[in-house]
Amino acid sequence: MVQYVGVHDLIRLIRLQGIETVLRELAEYIEDDFRRWPAFDKRPRLASHSEHGAIELMPTSDDALYSFKYVNGHPGNTRDGLQTVIAFGMLSDVRTGYPLILSEMTLLTALRTAATSAVAARYLARADSRVLAIIGAGAQSEFQATAFKTLLGIDTVRIYDTDPDATQKFCDNMKNSGLSITIAASSQEAVEGADIITTITADKQMATILSDNMIGAGVHINAVGGDCPGKTELQADILTRGRVFVEYTEQTRLEGELQQMPEDFQVTELWEIIAGNKKGRRSARDITIFDSVGFATEDFSALRYLRDKVSGTSFCKTLDLLANPEDPRNLFGLLNSSVPDEECSFE
Amino acid sequence: MVQYVGVHDLIRLIRLQGIETVLRELAEYIEDDFRRWPAFDKRPRLASHSEHGAIELMPTSDDALYSFKYVNGHPGNTRDGLQTVIAFGMLSDVRTGYPLILSEMTLLTALRTAATSAVAARYLARADSRVLAIIGAGAQSEFQATAFKTLLGIDTVRIYDTDPDATQKFCDNMKNSGLSITIAASSQEAVEGADIITTITADKQMATILSDNMIGAGVHINAVGGDCPGKTELQADILTRGRVFVEYTEQTRLEGELQQMPEDFQVTELWEIIAGNKKGRRSARDITIFDSVGFATEDFSALRYLRDKVSGTSFCKTLDLLANPEDPRNLFGLLNSSVPDEECSFE
Repeated sequence: MVQYVGVHDLIRLIRLQGIETVLRELAEYIEDDFRRWPAFDKRPRLASHSEHGAIELMPTSDDALYSFKYVNGHPGNTRDGLQTVIAFGMLSDVRTGYPLILSEMTLLTALRTAATSAVAARYLARADSRVLAIIGAGAQSEFQATAFKTLLGIDTVRIYDTDPDATQKFCDNMKNSGLSITIAASSQEAVEGADIITTITADKQMATILSDNMIGAGVHINAVGGDCPGKTELQADILTRGRVFVEYTEQTRLEGELQQMPEDFQVTELWEIIAGNKKGRRSARDITIFDSVGFATEDFSALRYLRDKVSGTSFCKTLDLLANPEDPRNLFGLLNSSVPDEECSFE
Repeated sequence: MVQYVGVHDLIRLIRLQGIETVLRELAEYIEDDFRRWPAFDKRPRLASHSEHGAIELMPTSDDALYSFKYVNGHPGNTRDGLQTVIAFGMLSDVRTGYPLILSEMTLLTALRTAATSAVAARYLARADSRVLAIIGAGAQSEFQATAFKTLLGIDTVRIYDTDPDATQKFCDNMKNSGLSITIAASSQEAVEGADIITTITADKQMATILSDNMIGAGVHINAVGGDCPGKTELQADILTRGRVFVEYTEQTRLEGELQQMPEDFQVTELWEIIAGNKKGRRSARDITIFDSVGFATEDFSALRYLRDKVSGTSFCKTLDLLANPEDPRNLFGLLNSSVPDEECSFE
């Protein structure tokens, strides 16, 4: 049997543990896996594009575990009241190839994206950072605010979105968070005095959410929204002025802010900072940019965390996903075997 | 919600419908999809190799539907009483990226492999074929015998396996099939007088299950067992003497009997025969070889069939795999929402 964590059970888990605990624990798994980066089999995601959007498979593995995530990106879905992005994933045993756990990953991806942002910021932002600007109050915004509060000690969030309803939704969700929230009238106003800036807008186009003149010395930019071909958020000048950090260079050149830069533009992979091979922030005046597009190892970490957390508890069910005859060669025998003949009709 | 067909429900479906009906209906879907081959987005499978085996993702899509299959291949698994190959898969809506149905695919793959073999043989074997030789009495053998009986009117099967227990298992499973079964003492004896030969052995090596002198004029060879790098079953001379048909050339050159042949060795893709673009068998004396490795479109067909067959019936359950907040941007709101607070404890 394969363990299964559905939306309902994951929500129960997060509510019972508290989202801050979940983010803190998840961040440890993500950090641990970045630290042992060379142990992973890495490749760009496998995307299937249509006029409506993309469906992607994101596999990775180490010596013991294999994971993949199924995730779509359909910008027009919100028109029909559907999610732009939904996801699920699976963790398997490399030794046998058998699946271990299947999980919803729409919520889990939102958590791991925010946790990854916060892990990166711990190495790249100034240690005295207290004010976070968030540009874009979409589905990821509250996860970002909560992760930065939990993992970095952010106490103030300045939020901006072109849609006042989205901003209101953000404020409603954050009202008991303990964060001081300010609604800004523009991106410019949001970033004034911010130590860290998260850009997480949804438009699928080359946009300029942040221009160079808005970025002061010492700021850390967490660029999350530019995450697919044809979608960027930062003016290219910012990337030249600051130092750029990425997850997996090959993928970020295709999908991240790096799309705007020449192919030999110098970047540093985040894992090298976490592993201690290279230095992150060098001075209080550095501008650091985490050009984040999301990578398969982060999903691996999230599934590994989830499995350790829920195995054997009431937070997972079991699925009969695997045909397992007593004699492995006698698959056909299952059709004659003693499966109970329930009352059933076929219509 | 996503529809889910587990092992238990699939077995119930097959038992209630009868495996012959299922194979016949499935074969129609497979044939229809081969006929519209150019409509599919095709690519080689994405494999992750380890010392223990391989884990593969096999995606494909047309304008309306996307499918992928997860499948492993771990030759050492039988030692531990596990299946060498287990699989599951999913069909999704290209327009929204949302999953439609998740299914076990260990049994479903066995069915689609046999149905594909029979579909190919209908175009490539002599119409008066009545005797089938099967070399290898493993997990796929009974499915092959049943598909050839149902779809081609085979009435006699000559079976050979190096392991008498496997042969016995085959005979036990086939005892009420209506087929006349003969146990052969060697491959040579099995193929004597056979119209069609299925090779479906399990050894992961370059083997010679069939040598050139065993193959008479007019025979159709259904080579199913040579299906991964380093594994073949036929002596290369046979491929030169006969005409070779494949599913997807690029993949078969890596995984099929074609591994033994030069890169420019002439083959014909099966879909061209089914679509009527090219001729299959040209005379009663032709030797035809279907060098089958299994392709993603066959899984697509199987999932499409299953969905049409079980949607809305008791043969599928539903899974809460997709987080679906009322306001798509308010994913975070799910964590504060009215999910019932059941009695639960976290240990």
